Amino acid sequence: MSILDVKWDPKEKKIARAAFDKAYQREMGDIKAALREQIAKLKDDEMVWSIHNYLSDRRSKVDNKYDYRYSQLLLVFGRLLKEGYLKEEDLFGLSDDKIKLIKSLSSNK
Amino acid sequence: MSILDVKWDPKEKKIARAAFDKAYQREMGDIKAALREQIAKLKDDEMVWSIHNYLSDRRSKVDNKYDYRYSQLLLVFGRLLKEGYLKEEDLFGLSDDKIKLIKSLSSNK
Repeated sequence: MSILDVKWDPKEKKIARAAFDKAYQREMGDIKAALREQIAKLKDDEMVWSIHNYLSDRRSKVDNKYDYRYSQLLLVFGRLLKEGYLKEEDLFGLSDDKIKLIKSLSSNK
Repeated sequence: MSILDVKWDPKEKKIARAAFDKAYQREMGDIKAALREQIAKLKDDEMVWSIHNYLSDRRSKVDNKYDYRYSQLLLVFGRLLKEGYLKEEDLFGLSDDKIKLIKSLSSNK
């Protein structure tokens, strides 16, 4: 199966949506924790702009990454699995060939 | 005296620099306090992006406002006085006509 002709049945779409949302929440949780840590250390004026730079960078990556088009989803999941925001168990219930492709995409990048 | 032909003697330049820096520190202090307040209330993921929007907005205003060119300084001081980041006592030692112009610019805008 190529990632270009992958089909998602209704049950898989539900699993994919939940996995996608969970990964997003995990990543946002990381960003919130990092933000709180930076604020706790905030002293110099210029650190305010470092925090702004940090958020700009994370936001642009998040915006770019969380693309819920079915044509992109295996690539997105591969990346999220590699980065640790998606766990293998989140994919449980997807077809074996999809899981295999996601794992292979996750190790390729 | 027009703001176009204003001259700054060395003593005034020193006072102006100190006043400018003090206003900047006050404004950054405000931003830091607002940031800490927002972080204390941080719950939903989307609030992270509200904080980012807040910092983007303040940064662009600060970058635009703190222009230390002598040709701009009376206008800058007028605005900072109006906004409360500059205090009248910070201007002590500048010529009377400069103070008068700054005050008039501060009430005009």
